[in-house]
Amino acid sequence: MSLKKLPALLLAAALLVGTAPALGQETAPGIAKYVFFFIGDGMSNPQTTAAQYYNGTMENRESEVPVSKGLSFTGFPVVGLQVTHDASSFAPDSAATATAMATGQKTTSGTVNLLPDEETPLKIITEYAREAGMKIGVVTSVSLDHATPAAQYARSSHRSNQYDIAVQGLTNGLLDFLGGGGFRQTDGRRGDKRNLFEIARENGWNLVNDNEGIRAIGASSGRTLAIVPDLAGGDAMQYEVDRLAIIEDGGDSLSLKEMTSAAIRALEGGENGFFLMAEGGKIDWAAHANDVFTMIHEVNALDEAVGAALDFSQKHPGETLIVVTGDHETGGLSLGYAATGYDIDLELLRRQTMSFEAFDRVVADLRAKEAGFDEVLKAITRNFGLTLDEERSLRLTDGELQKLEDAYAMNLLPSDERDYGEEEKINYGDYQPLSVTAVHILARKAGLNFSSYAHTGLTLPVYAWGAGAEYFSGLYDNTRIFHHFMDAMGLTPDD
Amino acid sequence: MSLKKLPALLLAAALLVGTAPALGQETAPGIAKYVFFFIGDGMSNPQTTAAQYYNGTMENRESEVPVSKGLSFTGFPVVGLQVTHDASSFAPDSAATATAMATGQKTTSGTVNLLPDEETPLKIITEYAREAGMKIGVVTSVSLDHATPAAQYARSSHRSNQYDIAVQGLTNGLLDFLGGGGFRQTDGRRGDKRNLFEIARENGWNLVNDNEGIRAIGASSGRTLAIVPDLAGGDAMQYEVDRLAIIEDGGDSLSLKEMTSAAIRALEGGENGFFLMAEGGKIDWAAHANDVFTMIHEVNALDEAVGAALDFSQKHPGETLIVVTGDHETGGLSLGYAATGYDIDLELLRRQTMSFEAFDRVVADLRAKEAGFDEVLKAITRNFGLTLDEERSLRLTDGELQKLEDAYAMNLLPSDERDYGEEEKINYGDYQPLSVTAVHILARKAGLNFSSYAHTGLTLPVYAWGAGAEYFSGLYDNTRIFHHFMDAMGLTPDD
Repeated sequence: MSLKKLPALLLAAALLVGTAPALGQETAPGIAKYVFFFIGDGMSNPQTTAAQYYNGTMENRESEVPVSKGLSFTGFPVVGLQVTHDASSFAPDSAATATAMATGQKTTSGTVNLLPDEETPLKIITEYAREAGMKIGVVTSVSLDHATPAAQYARSSHRSNQYDIAVQGLTNGLLDFLGGGGFRQTDGRRGDKRNLFEIARENGWNLVNDNEGIRAIGASSGRTLAIVPDLAGGDAMQYEVDRLAIIEDGGDSLSLKEMTSAAIRALEGGENGFFLMAEGGKIDWAAHANDVFTMIHEVNALDEAVGAALDFSQKHPGETLIVVTGDHETGGLSLGYAATGYDIDLELLRRQTMSFEAFDRVVADLRAKEAGFDEVLKAITRNFGLTLDEERSLRLTDGELQKLEDAYAMNLLPSDERDYGEEEKINYGDYQPLSVTAVHILARKAGLNFSSYAHTGLTLPVYAWGAGAEYFSGLYDNTRIFHHFMDAMGLTPDD
Repeated sequence: MSLKKLPALLLAAALLVGTAPALGQETAPGIAKYVFFFIGDGMSNPQTTAAQYYNGTMENRESEVPVSKGLSFTGFPVVGLQVTHDASSFAPDSAATATAMATGQKTTSGTVNLLPDEETPLKIITEYAREAGMKIGVVTSVSLDHATPAAQYARSSHRSNQYDIAVQGLTNGLLDFLGGGGFRQTDGRRGDKRNLFEIARENGWNLVNDNEGIRAIGASSGRTLAIVPDLAGGDAMQYEVDRLAIIEDGGDSLSLKEMTSAAIRALEGGENGFFLMAEGGKIDWAAHANDVFTMIHEVNALDEAVGAALDFSQKHPGETLIVVTGDHETGGLSLGYAATGYDIDLELLRRQTMSFEAFDRVVADLRAKEAGFDEVLKAITRNFGLTLDEERSLRLTDGELQKLEDAYAMNLLPSDERDYGEEEKINYGDYQPLSVTAVHILARKAGLNFSSYAHTGLTLPVYAWGAGAEYFSGLYDNTRIFHHFMDAMGLTPDD
């Protein structure tokens, strides 16, 4: 029952999804020349549906009935489902899942483009694309040497070898564009290695590190390394919610869409098209932290980046393929919670003002001045809307108030003196107790809940549009993603 | 970007999914004559993936790497995603979602085939199919008058009007086969109405109420009302896990597959094909109760029922359409849990011996004889594997043991004296405290968690195979399911 690979059928399918080349083009019907591979790290149906329902709610606040608002990619004509476990666990890691999609092989958690023996190298889809003369680009909202982008250009026995991974990307001649966050280990893990930017310059990279420069990137920019100037924690781009606050305050901060557009401009001049992987890496981070408001904004940031690809596709309608998927689900997010039953009120989320990461800094300030709980509660009310005011829908119950007090008491202890029992491990994970408690309470009042601070085993949708989209239909193992891309590009794997 | 309805493209798409009529049949290419609509109540990706991973684990217990085992329908070539909210909530109810799929219209939670005004009738897809001369069948593992089956044959301002719903099904001439569980209100809600079986006989129904009789149902059985003799709670068929125990003990109990096969035999003789909705209704019930082991077996029972349709399709390969989907997700199930992180060990679940419902009876017995907690713990160990034995992977932590003790103490109170606070509501819902605590602990040790006792807002996959399957591609509102079926059958909605 798998899809047949006969060209005539491909052509028919391409017609069906509205992206067919003109009839009569006998050669290579529906071959994808411009390939976009968007990965929402940690993104499955809970993440996208939460965004659809939140966006629908916020744009229809007077509506008496629930409204869902589609994302750009939820309108794609082809949907698939990928099964994500890796060779270590049903709850896989990003290195292994990115390897599966980039090489067609399962490996162990943490391993990048090597078999589970951690030695045997796997050929990367970008290497095939490169051999076919395509330009290669990688964009991510997290650091450039993180597991998901790494799997597009490097091999390593462990994703934590970020210096080595970056060196490979800067020196192996595979990439034409690398942009987003920065490097985690610029001078090596212990600061005793050659500076990565020096290596970049020696290898002909054009380093662009300011917003206007990045906005001016074009076909003449050459091999481009683009790093936003306002790096957030983890050398990542800003959380979208914090970026919007910067803009609102009159500042400037680049979006994932702008970085994706820069990549498109840098890559589009080539004769043989391009392969561009763009990652929304902080959907995962926000979901790990169980911060649903921040997570929804990260989904929206990815959605807008996909919009840049759709805009581009208008220029090359029969030759562009856009695939949007995740690598695993993060957080075990549910759109429903035991205490709220059938009630989901997403509008409550809008009272949050900043990401958990930004609130961690508020907590650090409160702690530094040994603020009393009254002052802490004011900060909670200001930034999450949670209140003791009887008349508000976000009124804290006695139990919730107690949880916030307990969390702040834990926050007042030095990290190494926080002796967690079973309950505290479940309540706080590795996060700042007060921040994570606040986002838990807000999400649950809205009728949402996270079950985990880790990745989960949920299958993921694959949304496909354009030339070769039909290959992505059905349910399949994540290793098939590699083959579907290869088929769509008309390429054949080596033996 | 929606699918075009040109016949030529349909033919092409039908070819693509491997179910095309012979080329050259100019009229009505790919029209579905035999239509199977399987609804896994409460089933979305968490439910099916849990089953895939559990089944893969149990069939490969020596494997060092995780193994997923596909279900019959996860191999279908076309996948879609449906958005499920109803006119009341993002966490919809089965009556409203079944209405959306059966009529193409959103309505409020609880309403069956009427607009939200609770008056305006909606035309049901089975009515269109009937007008086209197709035979109509409804199969469910729960009671025949439950919301999901009701939406195939009745209209009501509320799903709880089960007597009235049953009367409609028995008297409106729409159904040729109705089989599964029994009726909830055989003599009316207050026992003062005409007996439903009397009404059935007067209306020419052939009542079959024994296993051998149901196994002998065929084309000559006429209009058939088939009710299993061994009804479980809620006048439903047995939970699959309890049914398997009955079989293992040398007893007999019909499976959902057997009931579906009986329906096929009753319906297949018609000149103009049939429309058969078959529901796995207890996936939902088990998920409401947060009993993942029982839930997985219910998914497997549905999977086997789909197998009966696939067997049938071999006789009519170009004219059969099989669609498998859910109506909403139930329980907010995650394949991951805060305390287990990236570890998921599904093999632990196999220690469960019976459904929560069957264990409720064990608890009732313990309570009746005022058993001490030692004896309770023995029952827990026997039926869930949870133990104080230091060497076992299912060893209870101090916190878990305390939860079981607290739950049993609550169980010892009369229901109306159980004064639940915030925590108890979350811990127990409306379930027997000891049973729900046991299934919670077992699931969490295996690395799974439920967030809710209610339905959630998660989108649902739609798996489609055969004639017209291509209509079900992409992501869409659940009301589109009606239109996709209509298109596949070549039917046009009235104005």
